[in-house]
Amino acid sequence: MGSLTVSLSERAYEIEICRGFDSFRTMLDLVTTNNQVMIVTNNVIAPIYLDVMKEKLSGLNVNTCILEDGEVFKTLSAIEQVITSLLEARFDRGCTLIALGGGVVGDIAGFAASSYQRGVKFVQVPTTLLAQVDSSVGGKTGVNHPLGKNMIGAFYQPKLVYANVETLSTLPTRELRAGIAEIIKYGLIARPDFFNWLEEHLDKLLDGDADYLAKAIKISCETKAEVVAKDERESGIRAILNLGHTFGHAIETGLGYGEWLHGEAVACGMCLAAKMSYLAGWIPEEALAKTVALIQRANLPTSLPPTLSATEMLNHMQVDKKNRDGKIRLVLLRHLGEAVISDDYDPKLLLEVLENPAA
Amino acid sequence: MGSLTVSLSERAYEIEICRGFDSFRTMLDLVTTNNQVMIVTNNVIAPIYLDVMKEKLSGLNVNTCILEDGEVFKTLSAIEQVITSLLEARFDRGCTLIALGGGVVGDIAGFAASSYQRGVKFVQVPTTLLAQVDSSVGGKTGVNHPLGKNMIGAFYQPKLVYANVETLSTLPTRELRAGIAEIIKYGLIARPDFFNWLEEHLDKLLDGDADYLAKAIKISCETKAEVVAKDERESGIRAILNLGHTFGHAIETGLGYGEWLHGEAVACGMCLAAKMSYLAGWIPEEALAKTVALIQRANLPTSLPPTLSATEMLNHMQVDKKNRDGKIRLVLLRHLGEAVISDDYDPKLLLEVLENPAA
Repeated sequence: MGSLTVSLSERAYEIEICRGFDSFRTMLDLVTTNNQVMIVTNNVIAPIYLDVMKEKLSGLNVNTCILEDGEVFKTLSAIEQVITSLLEARFDRGCTLIALGGGVVGDIAGFAASSYQRGVKFVQVPTTLLAQVDSSVGGKTGVNHPLGKNMIGAFYQPKLVYANVETLSTLPTRELRAGIAEIIKYGLIARPDFFNWLEEHLDKLLDGDADYLAKAIKISCETKAEVVAKDERESGIRAILNLGHTFGHAIETGLGYGEWLHGEAVACGMCLAAKMSYLAGWIPEEALAKTVALIQRANLPTSLPPTLSATEMLNHMQVDKKNRDGKIRLVLLRHLGEAVISDDYDPKLLLEVLENPAA
Repeated sequence: MGSLTVSLSERAYEIEICRGFDSFRTMLDLVTTNNQVMIVTNNVIAPIYLDVMKEKLSGLNVNTCILEDGEVFKTLSAIEQVITSLLEARFDRGCTLIALGGGVVGDIAGFAASSYQRGVKFVQVPTTLLAQVDSSVGGKTGVNHPLGKNMIGAFYQPKLVYANVETLSTLPTRELRAGIAEIIKYGLIARPDFFNWLEEHLDKLLDGDADYLAKAIKISCETKAEVVAKDERESGIRAILNLGHTFGHAIETGLGYGEWLHGEAVACGMCLAAKMSYLAGWIPEEALAKTVALIQRANLPTSLPPTLSATEMLNHMQVDKKNRDGKIRLVLLRHLGEAVISDDYDPKLLLEVLENPAA
């Protein structure tokens, strides 16, 4: 259905978007250096895809590490579990880790791959929409700390991303919608044309239409790959990919990991960011309304959970990787289709948005 | 007393070898980007140097993380402890970690720096001879796993290495000697002239003569920096820096971390590597004798601890980062002053060396 390259000179890699796992082995063989393969997955994905994956890997020395499912298990303990599996299998520095699952599996497996023997090969096989359009691309890996999300990790690029859109057919509706939140994000930050396309075809995506999903995945990955190629380690522009995420991470930390899905928290965060951009006079009311309407049509939350106070939100937002010198840096909208990173906003606006959360 | 540069293009950094901490603040200010500084040290070093270090950092936002002393605490839990300190201090991605202590502190602080928010700045202030001549230079960071030493980590270069030789005056004799093991290593693997110099001046080093120590530290760092500049991520030549380490790590794992000091285990390992090189017909008996004699003069072990069987040693040696496809790769001596990495040796020789451990 399509493939594209993330251009990072010697760390460049392919993203393959396709139906089925037919070409997986051929593509894997291009990036491995020995026959040692560790599949890292979780107890929800394993019953569905582990056998089919193992079949594709016949003849290789395949081991499996099955994690507990859920963001709440994305901790250093999970890293230790993967490393233990690798050591018990006596895998050496030439081995390859395959992350088979959603964003949590990819984040854990990626960080484990970056740190096992100071770095081994890593392949992403994302099976959720969110992972296919976002977390599997770009090399951000890591785990949570009780005091902050994704605070321990590494920039570590995969050697291959293999997105089989057929895996989305087994995805719970709620997770499909969470992935659509990140797709909408690309429209908002960089692709006004794509935002319009989404307004037109959102129902196809919600219905799980494979062709429309494949197109949305491809444009999303293209947009992300372009930004990542410009700024791999997020010293500047890459931060725009975090639209809605500062609010979103605070929601996730505040509610406890796993209560809201990451995409749900980001959806709400994008509404709040759009509202701030509107209050700052950067985008017209119509753009705010269009943003909120599209997110609402996807059945995603547009306002803060009532249990989280503005003070709590601010407190959590102060622990964000974008912050410098104690100031909360936000990604805001300059136009519908263009994002900026800013700490030069009126703090009253932030408070207003957090205290009157209905976007 | 001298400074040199580790040439790694945009990751290049200075190694300063001096007496006292007078120039520390000036050099630190050249590499920091904000005022957030976390000193990572341990409960043995803190009472001696923490106050003097804090005094040098006046005006900065200084926090401290004090670890338990010892290789046995070099685990993922220590990483979590450092990250917790950083989060509690609300330090952002612009902060700097200072490792004040020996190799263990440097390995932990370095890996924590590499993974906190996916990477913050890192400065080494080594206070042991082993750290000054070896572990603080070259960017190897990481922690142990019960199944293998240094199995979880990252290649992550410091921004500055500041070696104050006066700190060696408070070092226990046993640790000074352990550092001398790594100094002898540089003579053996790459610097026959330096090996001769060590034969002549070993007593000065054992007496803790600051000028002779400074010279030995400088030549050691130069040798290491040259090798690291050629092969930062150990895809080839860098592995020669591991002379004696495959045996050494097996001893450390076999006895339990902390029983023998790392330098002691390496000293013994170098004798075994030299013996294998002799048995293979690569070095003459005289070179083996000179190697063992120098190590013995430094009061370092030259034979395996009697409690470790050959089978146990082999078992542990199979878990080594240099190994490929199940073969144990060893660093051996082609000449006294030249090392090679090889898995092309007669396995019987390895068994002979392990079964008759007296070199």
